[in-house]
Amino acid sequence: MCSHLQTSMEGLIAVFHSYSGKEGDKYKLSKAELKNLLQGELSDFLAGSKDPMVVEKIMHELDENKDGEVDFQEFVVLVAALTVACNDFFIDENESAMKCKDAGSK
Amino acid sequence: MCSHLQTSMEGLIAVFHSYSGKEGDKYKLSKAELKNLLQGELSDFLAGSKDPMVVEKIMHELDENKDGEVDFQEFVVLVAALTVACNDFFIDENESAMKCKDAGSK
Repeated sequence: MCSHLQTSMEGLIAVFHSYSGKEGDKYKLSKAELKNLLQGELSDFLAGSKDPMVVEKIMHELDENKDGEVDFQEFVVLVAALTVACNDFFIDENESAMKCKDAGSK
Repeated sequence: MCSHLQTSMEGLIAVFHSYSGKEGDKYKLSKAELKNLLQGELSDFLAGSKDPMVVEKIMHELDENKDGEVDFQEFVVLVAALTVACNDFFIDENESAMKCKDAGSK
């Protein structure tokens, strides 16, 4: 049976392949596939940006080997960075909630 | 509503905190907490190693800032590497299955 961690890891792989298999190299994201993934899976992050070139910029950042596509290893770098940011946000929220609780109990 | 990708990212955060909160800094994994996580979540990977010092070695590899603990950012590096390895395995399996299918249809 899969552990929670393995389930989450498999989830990352499944999401990537659900978008990468549509056109061109089925194991890589073309720009159009990356845009679909960002809009479909990370719309909140995209919505925060008013920059019409945001997808191009993300593509440029992720595409380390400059082959015009994003492979899984390049994709995981994005996911890792976003997950760390979410964790930092979670910790900040947790800490301020604890401070409110302490203040309330005085 | 959370997307599949966000659910997987949240899963990584939840797993980390379910082990890191037990002793010491609740936002970091002590060696004992890391050992529990590896045994609880990645037992297959651990089982593959006969090295009694495997946890110490993983700890040493992950603990970039050498504070004797593994924070979330250091943990995500391990998860990213393992997920990329799983994806490579998935692709190899997929490709050999396709070759078998092609051979069968000739």
